[in-house]
Amino acid sequence: MSLTDSRISLAHGNGGRFMRELIDEVFARHLANDALDTTVDAARLALPGDRILFSTDGFTVQPLEFPGGTIGSLAVHGTTNDLAVAGGDPLFLSLNAFIEEGFEAALLERIVVDLARSAAELGVRVAAGDTKVLPRGQGGGLYLATTGIGVMRHPGALGLNEIREGDALLVSGPVGDHAVAVLLAREQFGLRGEIRSDAGSVLPLTRALRDVPGLRFMRDPTRGGLVSAAHEIARATGLEVILDEPTVPVRPPVRAVCDILGYDPYYLACEGRVVAVMAPEAADHALSAWKAAPGGADAAVIGRLQAPRNGGAVALRTELGGLRLLEELEDDPLPRIC
Amino acid sequence: MSLTDSRISLAHGNGGRFMRELIDEVFARHLANDALDTTVDAARLALPGDRILFSTDGFTVQPLEFPGGTIGSLAVHGTTNDLAVAGGDPLFLSLNAFIEEGFEAALLERIVVDLARSAAELGVRVAAGDTKVLPRGQGGGLYLATTGIGVMRHPGALGLNEIREGDALLVSGPVGDHAVAVLLAREQFGLRGEIRSDAGSVLPLTRALRDVPGLRFMRDPTRGGLVSAAHEIARATGLEVILDEPTVPVRPPVRAVCDILGYDPYYLACEGRVVAVMAPEAADHALSAWKAAPGGADAAVIGRLQAPRNGGAVALRTELGGLRLLEELEDDPLPRIC
Repeated sequence: MSLTDSRISLAHGNGGRFMRELIDEVFARHLANDALDTTVDAARLALPGDRILFSTDGFTVQPLEFPGGTIGSLAVHGTTNDLAVAGGDPLFLSLNAFIEEGFEAALLERIVVDLARSAAELGVRVAAGDTKVLPRGQGGGLYLATTGIGVMRHPGALGLNEIREGDALLVSGPVGDHAVAVLLAREQFGLRGEIRSDAGSVLPLTRALRDVPGLRFMRDPTRGGLVSAAHEIARATGLEVILDEPTVPVRPPVRAVCDILGYDPYYLACEGRVVAVMAPEAADHALSAWKAAPGGADAAVIGRLQAPRNGGAVALRTELGGLRLLEELEDDPLPRIC
Repeated sequence: MSLTDSRISLAHGNGGRFMRELIDEVFARHLANDALDTTVDAARLALPGDRILFSTDGFTVQPLEFPGGTIGSLAVHGTTNDLAVAGGDPLFLSLNAFIEEGFEAALLERIVVDLARSAAELGVRVAAGDTKVLPRGQGGGLYLATTGIGVMRHPGALGLNEIREGDALLVSGPVGDHAVAVLLAREQFGLRGEIRSDAGSVLPLTRALRDVPGLRFMRDPTRGGLVSAAHEIARATGLEVILDEPTVPVRPPVRAVCDILGYDPYYLACEGRVVAVMAPEAADHALSAWKAAPGGADAAVIGRLQAPRNGGAVALRTELGGLRLLEELEDDPLPRIC
């Protein structure tokens, strides 16, 4: 990177030469593709009519680089995962960067390179972008937002309103890896570990279910984790979600960190997992499809939906056979985890 | 607004109940439209094929409310103006909010209401959204990003590559009002004035030129102002932009503030103006069309494009007949102006 200075200055956001150089030398250079033209006000896209999907996400993770990813790859995967669980393939992204004055230019470039690589791996093109530079002390380093356009590919209907009593709940892999990896990377707890974030694209997983009949609904359990996804399902359907604790995959080191810090892994964010609701007779088919797909080796059937009879929307059947209500997350903030 | 607290807390960003209430009670309530469903991962849109426009912008203006607008209306107009100058009509927006812990909930609601009203006036629907809450001291209050999808409506080709030697440059109204209105609203200079920002939609202006033959290119002169727009034209075309100073509209109070503070109004941001490049024989037609359109009463032909012969890309012919080079903006930051 040939920026005059090695740190971002307010002049990199003022609309003049420095801003143009920042955009050309960092963003446009690494994100180059035939849909991106930094001299136009709006990109011209060809899209297939009435099956368009549209989604957006903001990214504030701290630290910006963590085991298994960066805020750059996360910004690609977060938004494209939302398109994927809606049944689509991602096509285009826009990118907003809010950069704090004084931010290290080399770190910005590493992040943009990671973002560009992640987009290229998915065949997704960044077609529009904007940068703003924030005065020192008003920015927290770097925030990103991405907005994605995709095309619906799932042949049938998908949605919360497709869910029926008796349906099975599946998860594509262990929960909580992302949140714990980010927490440990902050080094504020004096804990060290080998835990990598699960951050990544779920597209291989959602595509694996495209030909499986009986798929009702998918969601990626990000902020608020598995329990928050379950509460969304319960609230929308009026059904009760019963999770079968021994079947919910949690890596032993993740459980160990949770035990030490007092977190419940079922509330912790994943960034590369999918929760799927399947017709009961289709659950095994879906499980096999996931186990054969990249990232799905530890997939499991973890629960079912039933008419309410335990006085709570989401409950965990424990190893000992007891039932523990899992309340909706309230005041347990883990800021800047995603 | 019935949020439990009158200030935003970290728990409003954690994926649980408080976050759901914030989204339901502030964002979804005010932005309600048939394309917005806060329970889906991605919105389903119907779009007309191959004439799609896509643009994004971030918003960091300080103060968040200023004479003539708020960061909410600015977030609608900024992105839809980019679609408008590209020759399109805006259809859909996504919205990202980065909210600092402790932010006043009533102010957030006023801003969202202003955003919703601006979108409704344009017939634009917010179809996707995301909120993140930033720990106190890491956020600067509120940042927004919007990404817009529009449809190309201009019948001919528009773009920098359509510009020819001899073309005329027009501006739709006085320059610098937005930047000066925001600066005065900060009250850090001890100056008071009646200057309102020009922030608003340029759609009536861009639509007014839709049937005017000879339109080559349009741009909204935001960050870096008129001079930065002129430099972009010069860089892309290899031509020289000569601005005729007596014809460039600047309101007397804007000029007075610039004289006091040492700013050049030609470098100051507008948020509701259009610069258009026209074939010379079409300039009068375009000028009449603008003067008859809302917001175009003070439109003017302000310059022309010529082969380089003054040793600079952008120059100002002054009232006395001299020629002053207008360098590309470098280190003159006006942070958080837009």
